[in-house]
Amino acid sequence: MTEIRVFEGILAANKRLAEQNRRLFGSRDVLVINVLGSPGSGKTTLLEQTIREVGRTSGLSIGVIEGDVATRRDAERIGALGVPVIQINTAGGCHLDANMLDSVLDELPLSKIDILFIENVGNLVCPAGFDLGEHAKVTVLSVTEGDDKPTKYPAAFLKSACTVITKTDLLAQTNFNMDVAIADLKAINSSLEVFQVCNTTGDGIEAWTQWLLAKRNAGREQDGGDER
Amino acid sequence: MTEIRVFEGILAANKRLAEQNRRLFGSRDVLVINVLGSPGSGKTTLLEQTIREVGRTSGLSIGVIEGDVATRRDAERIGALGVPVIQINTAGGCHLDANMLDSVLDELPLSKIDILFIENVGNLVCPAGFDLGEHAKVTVLSVTEGDDKPTKYPAAFLKSACTVITKTDLLAQTNFNMDVAIADLKAINSSLEVFQVCNTTGDGIEAWTQWLLAKRNAGREQDGGDER
Repeated sequence: MTEIRVFEGILAANKRLAEQNRRLFGSRDVLVINVLGSPGSGKTTLLEQTIREVGRTSGLSIGVIEGDVATRRDAERIGALGVPVIQINTAGGCHLDANMLDSVLDELPLSKIDILFIENVGNLVCPAGFDLGEHAKVTVLSVTEGDDKPTKYPAAFLKSACTVITKTDLLAQTNFNMDVAIADLKAINSSLEVFQVCNTTGDGIEAWTQWLLAKRNAGREQDGGDER
Repeated sequence: MTEIRVFEGILAANKRLAEQNRRLFGSRDVLVINVLGSPGSGKTTLLEQTIREVGRTSGLSIGVIEGDVATRRDAERIGALGVPVIQINTAGGCHLDANMLDSVLDELPLSKIDILFIENVGNLVCPAGFDLGEHAKVTVLSVTEGDDKPTKYPAAFLKSACTVITKTDLLAQTNFNMDVAIADLKAINSSLEVFQVCNTTGDGIEAWTQWLLAKRNAGREQDGGDER
């Protein structure tokens, strides 16, 4: 029982800090997206493609917070595209929390950022339980992981506004059934938006970024946002 | 500080139960392998191929414990091969622990099993921290996850006796550099054995199962075992 009460205390403290972060994001007029997915699902590559596409089609500026167990590799990849990026190393920790985020936000020029991506630790389980103060969670699922993963790991998909299915160029080399995957995703979360992209060729990136830009505009009309 | 002390208490209690499990496995002459890896890395498919290959080349019998956040799908796949299998659902939990294992061991005919695989929850982070009483951890890494994953998620590889690199049929379709991956794995853990397999064609399965059978024989000569 002690273990459960401690965990509930951690979650309550996290929720308070997440709300504080969300108020800060609202005051700076930033749309914040928390990106979840397994190791190697294509989160960083999706962000690279998204930064290029948003830069090409809009005047909006992007910032990124990279969460990793170890290394600065993802931050180096994003930084090479010329956008502000902060690396959080969790030193073995399996997810980001609102306190980790709070501790680095002063290092970002938030008032100059329109869309802030937080790339969570590669883990399809733990990050789903921790609100960071984002306006939406987006889960990345690669074709090579298999079409059974939404049903086997439902929490991240249940809490997401959108799932981006990546590596569609490898569909023919796998037994991934796209119809089954989408039906299972909708059974878990009927309001989930689903996009299919190939980060190598850029196929599907346009539709996903249009959803993102529409979300940014909708958020501004609402003058703020909340966790969805 | 409270949070850290509670976690240390959990780990100490887990260690005691893991040692108890290991003594039970020793008394029943079972080699126990704890299989780690990301969602979709190919853990269940590797076990399916291994069960077939061990059945074909030796008279040894295999049992499996399947750990999942949700569903009985993996246990159904393994059960279809006619080997004893138990499904543990963690109800959202991100790893198996020694207590979960202890609670199901009575349901397996341990004295009739030569090699027991425990397929952990698909998660490259958390399961590495919890000894279950196994004799060795084996980490599964798929080519489609990327060659940077050992360095980004070192703990599982550091604690493993062996890493099986899967989906080698997709090498040409990815930017995975096998030399880099193996060099990084050896830098993390110089005694790590590395095998390359394709679960679809069966390539490489023989070398991996020979390692497994040698480990089984070595364990019997030592009359027991310990966590490696």
